[in-house]
Amino acid sequence: MDEARKAVLQEVFSFWEHLTEQEKRETQENAAELCFQKGQFIHRAGEDCAGLLLVTAGQLRTYILSDDGREVTLYRLWEKDVCVLSASCILSEVAFDVLIEAAEDTQAILLPLAFFRRLKEENVYVELFTYRLATERFSDVMWSLQQILFMRADQRLAAFLWDEVTRTGREEIAYTHEQIARYMGSAREVVSRLLKYFSEEGIVQVSRGKIRVTDRAGLKRFL
Amino acid sequence: MDEARKAVLQEVFSFWEHLTEQEKRETQENAAELCFQKGQFIHRAGEDCAGLLLVTAGQLRTYILSDDGREVTLYRLWEKDVCVLSASCILSEVAFDVLIEAAEDTQAILLPLAFFRRLKEENVYVELFTYRLATERFSDVMWSLQQILFMRADQRLAAFLWDEVTRTGREEIAYTHEQIARYMGSAREVVSRLLKYFSEEGIVQVSRGKIRVTDRAGLKRFL
Repeated sequence: MDEARKAVLQEVFSFWEHLTEQEKRETQENAAELCFQKGQFIHRAGEDCAGLLLVTAGQLRTYILSDDGREVTLYRLWEKDVCVLSASCILSEVAFDVLIEAAEDTQAILLPLAFFRRLKEENVYVELFTYRLATERFSDVMWSLQQILFMRADQRLAAFLWDEVTRTGREEIAYTHEQIARYMGSAREVVSRLLKYFSEEGIVQVSRGKIRVTDRAGLKRFL
Repeated sequence: MDEARKAVLQEVFSFWEHLTEQEKRETQENAAELCFQKGQFIHRAGEDCAGLLLVTAGQLRTYILSDDGREVTLYRLWEKDVCVLSASCILSEVAFDVLIEAAEDTQAILLPLAFFRRLKEENVYVELFTYRLATERFSDVMWSLQQILFMRADQRLAAFLWDEVTRTGREEIAYTHEQIARYMGSAREVVSRLLKYFSEEGIVQVSRGKIRVTDRAGLKRFL
């Protein structure tokens, strides 16, 4: 493990100062670097349980799936975020199943399940870190829930576009209407209709598989 | 504090064995017994932040409210459940607001905020207990979210009636259609229409402010 990776571990894992020298060494030795291709599954309800994942590049998306195939995005994780539900099988308090996929090409550092389980059992600060993380994800889910339940679809689409432009610093958004609908927990038809409306308002330009935000101030009025 | 109450503290607060003798004494001294009347607010977004509440009788309901007054129930707590979001102001990971009300006449033991904050800061096991609880509530919310998003309204109503009958051991359910709609995150009209349908199917008898389940097996077919 190179020094840059070690520095990320120490920065993100706030329990680091509470580890013994041996635990620090073992954490570095057991940490594995993984690459996921865009669209690759990382966790599938009841199937995989890889361990704790620290994202170093790219994006993970956590979502749930209904019996009839509808997807609802719960939250997304970026660089230096830690994915805790990929170790949900060793958290007895987590009684639900989610799916986790790489929404972009993604790199991550994995603390494999068996090692992470042992570390969590022998060090109360690791356990505390884990449940604090889960509580953060609880907040993320509450945010999504409120968006789904209470925000009008035009607001949700505007919020999605605004977040993307802010995050990437680029006006161009390379998602299909279908993908945006999934992220919003809405239907493709609704997204297409709204994009047509935004386009007529001069806020976006829509072309095949791409959306360009042409009027940020206009978009912001919908937030 | 009587011996029965002390026993409940020790049973429910799983960090008890990790407290010092002084901390145990202080916990018993600071614990306050509270009574809430049915419908009374315990926590209102951004207003109250009483501390940790251990329910000893009755029922607490936690829900969110939209701008236009729609309520969505997140979960309910019963005897020996601990309410953690009534202390959310000292949990930096909790970035959302909820409302908590007594859904029945309710008794609870309160660890007041200032004391609980100090105990949580000086004892890592109290902190861990707090975040494990929050993670349990995360599971409760995920359950509700999946019901709201993916279950048909008839299934949700059947699940609600089934849970009530199972919990109370009585066939009679003393809720108005309006109240059931709130618990289900649905509309009163939908509940009334479905109860009429269930009634025609011989599964329930509906009278003013009361529902009697007359065919449990029939109800179960909807689950």
